[in-house]
Amino acid sequence: MTIEASKSEQRAPKIRLGMVGGGQGAFIGAVHRMAARLDDHYDLVAGALSSTPEKALASARDLGLDPSRSYGSFAEMAEKEAARPDGIEAVSIVTPNHVHFAAAKAFLERGIHVICDKPLTSNLEDARALKAVADRADALFILTHNYTGYPMVRHARELVRAGELGEIRLVQMEYPQDWLAEPVEQTGAKQAVWRTDPAQSGAGGSTGDIGTHAYNLGSFISGLELDELAADVHTFVEGRRLDDNAHVMLRFKGGAKGLLWCSQVATGNENGLKVRIYGTKAGIEWTQADPNYLWFTLLGEPKQLITRAGAGAGAAAARVTRIPSGHPEGYLEAFATIYSEAAAAIIAARSGASVDPAVTYPTVDDGVKGVAFVSAIIESGKANGAWVKV
Amino acid sequence: MTIEASKSEQRAPKIRLGMVGGGQGAFIGAVHRMAARLDDHYDLVAGALSSTPEKALASARDLGLDPSRSYGSFAEMAEKEAARPDGIEAVSIVTPNHVHFAAAKAFLERGIHVICDKPLTSNLEDARALKAVADRADALFILTHNYTGYPMVRHARELVRAGELGEIRLVQMEYPQDWLAEPVEQTGAKQAVWRTDPAQSGAGGSTGDIGTHAYNLGSFISGLELDELAADVHTFVEGRRLDDNAHVMLRFKGGAKGLLWCSQVATGNENGLKVRIYGTKAGIEWTQADPNYLWFTLLGEPKQLITRAGAGAGAAAARVTRIPSGHPEGYLEAFATIYSEAAAAIIAARSGASVDPAVTYPTVDDGVKGVAFVSAIIESGKANGAWVKV
Amino acid sequence: MTIEASKSEQRAPKIRLGMVGGGQGAFIGAVHRMAARLDDHYDLVAGALSSTPEKALASARDLGLDPSRSYGSFAEMAEKEAARPDGIEAVSIVTPNHVHFAAAKAFLERGIHVICDKPLTSNLEDARALKAVADRADALFILTHNYTGYPMVRHARELVRAGELGEIRLVQMEYPQDWLAEPVEQTGAKQAVWRTDPAQSGAGGSTGDIGTHAYNLGSFISGLELDELAADVHTFVEGRRLDDNAHVMLRFKGGAKGLLWCSQVATGNENGLKVRIYGTKAGIEWTQADPNYLWFTLLGEPKQLITRAGAGAGAAAARVTRIPSGHPEGYLEAFATIYSEAAAAIIAARSGASVDPAVTYPTVDDGVKGVAFVSAIIESGKANGAWVKV
Amino acid sequence: MTIEASKSEQRAPKIRLGMVGGGQGAFIGAVHRMAARLDDHYDLVAGALSSTPEKALASARDLGLDPSRSYGSFAEMAEKEAARPDGIEAVSIVTPNHVHFAAAKAFLERGIHVICDKPLTSNLEDARALKAVADRADALFILTHNYTGYPMVRHARELVRAGELGEIRLVQMEYPQDWLAEPVEQTGAKQAVWRTDPAQSGAGGSTGDIGTHAYNLGSFISGLELDELAADVHTFVEGRRLDDNAHVMLRFKGGAKGLLWCSQVATGNENGLKVRIYGTKAGIEWTQADPNYLWFTLLGEPKQLITRAGAGAGAAAARVTRIPSGHPEGYLEAFATIYSEAAAAIIAARSGASVDPAVTYPTVDDGVKGVAFVSAIIESGKANGAWVKV
Repeated sequence: MTIEASKSEQRAPKIRLGMVGGGQGAFIGAVHRMAARLDDHYDLVAGALSSTPEKALASARDLGLDPSRSYGSFAEMAEKEAARPDGIEAVSIVTPNHVHFAAAKAFLERGIHVICDKPLTSNLEDARALKAVADRADALFILTHNYTGYPMVRHARELVRAGELGEIRLVQMEYPQDWLAEPVEQTGAKQAVWRTDPAQSGAGGSTGDIGTHAYNLGSFISGLELDELAADVHTFVEGRRLDDNAHVMLRFKGGAKGLLWCSQVATGNENGLKVRIYGTKAGIEWTQADPNYLWFTLLGEPKQLITRAGAGAGAAAARVTRIPSGHPEGYLEAFATIYSEAAAAIIAARSGASVDPAVTYPTVDDGVKGVAFVSAIIESGKANGAWVKV
Repeated sequence: MTIEASKSEQRAPKIRLGMVGGGQGAFIGAVHRMAARLDDHYDLVAGALSSTPEKALASARDLGLDPSRSYGSFAEMAEKEAARPDGIEAVSIVTPNHVHFAAAKAFLERGIHVICDKPLTSNLEDARALKAVADRADALFILTHNYTGYPMVRHARELVRAGELGEIRLVQMEYPQDWLAEPVEQTGAKQAVWRTDPAQSGAGGSTGDIGTHAYNLGSFISGLELDELAADVHTFVEGRRLDDNAHVMLRFKGGAKGLLWCSQVATGNENGLKVRIYGTKAGIEWTQADPNYLWFTLLGEPKQLITRAGAGAGAAAARVTRIPSGHPEGYLEAFATIYSEAAAAIIAARSGASVDPAVTYPTVDDGVKGVAFVSAIIESGKANGAWVKV
Repeated sequence: MTIEASKSEQRAPKIRLGMVGGGQGAFIGAVHRMAARLDDHYDLVAGALSSTPEKALASARDLGLDPSRSYGSFAEMAEKEAARPDGIEAVSIVTPNHVHFAAAKAFLERGIHVICDKPLTSNLEDARALKAVADRADALFILTHNYTGYPMVRHARELVRAGELGEIRLVQMEYPQDWLAEPVEQTGAKQAVWRTDPAQSGAGGSTGDIGTHAYNLGSFISGLELDELAADVHTFVEGRRLDDNAHVMLRFKGGAKGLLWCSQVATGNENGLKVRIYGTKAGIEWTQADPNYLWFTLLGEPKQLITRAGAGAGAAAARVTRIPSGHPEGYLEAFATIYSEAAAAIIAARSGASVDPAVTYPTVDDGVKGVAFVSAIIESGKANGAWVKV
Repeated sequence: MTIEASKSEQRAPKIRLGMVGGGQGAFIGAVHRMAARLDDHYDLVAGALSSTPEKALASARDLGLDPSRSYGSFAEMAEKEAARPDGIEAVSIVTPNHVHFAAAKAFLERGIHVICDKPLTSNLEDARALKAVADRADALFILTHNYTGYPMVRHARELVRAGELGEIRLVQMEYPQDWLAEPVEQTGAKQAVWRTDPAQSGAGGSTGDIGTHAYNLGSFISGLELDELAADVHTFVEGRRLDDNAHVMLRFKGGAKGLLWCSQVATGNENGLKVRIYGTKAGIEWTQADPNYLWFTLLGEPKQLITRAGAGAGAAAARVTRIPSGHPEGYLEAFATIYSEAAAAIIAARSGASVDPAVTYPTVDDGVKGVAFVSAIIESGKANGAWVKV
């Protein structure tokens, strides 16, 4: 109850936003829209919401879009919006993975900022090509590794940066789920179908869908660069075409070690993302399902439970939170933070102003790392767990 | 991960919303605005954001309001907006308690729906008068007892209604905080100043500020009516003019008993709102700080941990949630649910359509009960804990 | 893992112990015997284990007692053992409450130390009489308020004594169970039968059985003296002759306040004993079901989780624990601590040596306070919750 | 509170017990003694408590042993006790690992039952030789993998056996500690010195000390046989001669997979032993620090928290517990269960009776598996994580 003023408002004109994907029946599109709305920096004004024209139109109507700005394809949207004086300044790409590359390229090349769902692309070749496009584009590229938006994740990272953990020895990451414990993709469930289809998802199943999240988060907090990995990759559910479980041993540059486990068949787990980092001086533990808490233990001292906006939660966390301690923030708030960080950068870019150095969001480089990580896991898995450099 | 479609969008034109209070430096105003935005049913178009004219104007500018719709007083806003063809349809009242009555009256009498922060008013006389106004008004009155918007609270209530708990015997409520453990109001902290000022808050300190929340929540879930109470009311911090701790014994109609404890001096507690209800067949426990979980135990069976949108969370919870299980929702989402329930009712009211009976929000009657509850506590406290009928 | 040596052994000859009650079918007798054995200070050599002669004998045989030292009554045992040169030095009394007084008197008056289950007696008159006996006896009286033996309870008390909490404002105690949610005494279950029988238990049901435990524990940790109370006492289960739920408001000497809730009908609770104490500088919270943890929060600092034998657990806890941190100790260990504290006092008494001032166990005075507490609750309950001095 | 009778007593004459190791300054010896005492099946009557004669004698005196039965070496004790008509029937071996083989052999070959601390031996050759000795001996061999004595571990195993989990897919084990995060062995701390000394411990550091515990527990519950493993073994603390962290990927016969992590440098962990097992139908999770709870989740159902002696905890758990639910049992109780299971087998062996098939304790075969496991880890570690058959 010590926050005396809101941080959710600001003065700049809202950013005109388009969306690719996210039509009726989609899950993540709605999440992006709620995230964009929460802190009020965006106006959704255009969409290519579905590859099925009538669904695209119906979805646009649901969202109150001007029908003339509901497009049949991202390509058409990119072209026409770029030509309008009041065209979109940014676009959210929320399609299955295999579409990310072409869509992002179309907008970036026209100077339209891209906010793209993860993983970056469905293969490493596309990822590198997209990086090349992004690097030379006159537009920003933001990857929605949304878990980096949680205040206590920011605080964890700040603790590492401030040296509070000493030299890091261990980075343990896990992301167990159970929603694919049975062959639900065979029932036609949309979320399961595309996530288990190599053509839409790429070579990684659980590894690409959630392993990348865990890896991104461990890297984000620890600041470490991965050197090599050895993986045991498996598909438990008969008939499934992509992995649904992976065990990965990690060696970071500088000598730290790690483990990563991702699973979609771990019965009783919903979204059990957890990161634990141990250094010579202290250890931290964070669990996504209870995100307002961070365990922090100095060697030889009692465990501390630091709460979002509570005592001991520093400036990095405070920057990205909205309400006082004890009133929980959740997934949508963390997702909204990615949008608001993007907004800060986009608004600065309007005028060529420099961005506040505190602004932090995942970039195309993080995306390339994620795809390279999955690629290395798959390679190691095929080589019976041989160590593979990333 | 089984939610295949979003529920956050709908087709009706957005509701034109005004706000009274909530200018720069306010906390709850920003919360109301985020709540109104999340599910996209409202457009904030007018405001009387501060009783200080220049602050009102600056606040309106921050929020991107048309300066001509930034008013110097709620009275002016009520009059002028009611006269506009595109005037506000609803208003949020987020001032200190003593303003609620007059402001709500001004809008209700002009047919403008009111969404009002709790407690209803600063005294019982005003509360009853406001109820009379609301009852005869051609407009809805919604009280933002926001905790009733949490999905697992809805599920808890559904379990009670379905008879899963059997006959209820005990309703235990507590809401400990520690932010007033020291005389922070003497440092001028705005949130503390008005909450400890009888002129602005009414006769209840912790009882009015948070005790009402706990009581409302216990009543909402249990469906029980309070019969009488006995209270030990105390002010621990020297110089404070309102209570900062209360112990209350409760007797409900029909024979159930309860305890309510509210405190603003319980060191180590942020917003420890907790409700536990025990019946002849089962018990439930819910804690606001971890709102995505509900403990449910049938007598003689293992404890069950039901998760938001997870297995066992029924239709009442599903109606008011946005994302799959395992990704936490928080305080703002619950608050947004009150706004969205209000929107459903307001939209139906536009056309005189009947409201979906599932739509649930706290009403003026809940508000009167809350003020009567505080009034009875204060009366019992003054009578050294004698039983007082409510 | 930093404890390098055991503290469970010592050199003095073992104490010759007798037992009254605790025959076949008893629960608490076996607990006392395990507690007596754990730290190896006692030899059980005699018993009046049951008021049914054949059961007494069979029980003695089970325990490997010399049949000649299995007695038909406590009176016989007191007389004959007192006459033996190798007679018992101490006796454990583990009968239903109404027997405590006469049995304890018989042994105390013969100079045999008494270790007695709680509550002290079944009524206040007996309690005061027993105190008089104990005060003039040449023997020690130890009451097994076993929860005071938990290391983190000792640490909590130490924190209060050291002033770490500042001035105490609130002492919140609760002890919910659910094992009497149905009329199980009507099925003949032995534990339920005597605990709901006024002739054997006294005037308090849940209040005497578990309310006294909670009260004793809150008093032990806080060091506060109760001034007065107001209680709402109730029996939910039809046909039950003693209370199964009580709500009590407390006022301590010096100005602190408290709440106590005990229940045997709170569905889903096993032995939910919990004590929370809040002072001007810090708060602590301890839960019996998870006894190796103590929450400690300094105002304005992160919450600390202090673990048994871990960092921050001081000397008072270390004195009464056996194994390193991270390996849990439980109920039997805490119970054993009462026996070992008693042993230290008894061994000192053998030679007239002074006892280590760190030795701590509940006394007859604590017992009188407990019975007076129940008596005051019952009185207040009958007076519709009027305040009663204790 | 539904347990009506104790299970801690029985009629058979106590087992005469000796002890090798466990003198002054030892930690685990005292634990074994408390475990042997708790359920009252043993009398400690002889010892070779230290390899230092005067320390052996002083230790024997502390324990009240007849000085004539305090021996200078295990060899002397084996010889002389075997020759006495009232000689020991069983011996506890609680020395550093490298002594286990010779000591166990000396007693087994004389028909004296052996209760031996883990790991079985300090190398695989000794382990296999000891198995040969045990297999042909006229005496029992019990290995104190004490965690298998926890009631909820027994229940977990019962759930697997009963098919409640379906086909097991994943066995995840971890045992993080932090007590060797710094080079404490260089300060001379006894527990650290021998545990980091290859001559006393064998080739495994954290792997032998705690990795074996985690592996044993995962195997005990799952009933699975390991096929092969790949390990990344590391020593973080400079100058340490044995591993202090290991990451191990596991493949079980039949197709299940697993991960095992053991660490003695994971800052903030005391004894974080945790086992999680996921099958096609359900998953279970158990944590040693909170041993009275078992999480059990059927796919598509709410999570269940099963408590020791509470609803849903079956016969296998009830066999090995002492007190009603809600009163926690801990590490010593679980350890005592191993002793009591051993006692049941030893008492049956006295008369050649068959043992109750419910009696369960770790055997020499479990010991060989444990040593082979460590050996395979070390081999894989040296081969840069290549897969090694076990």
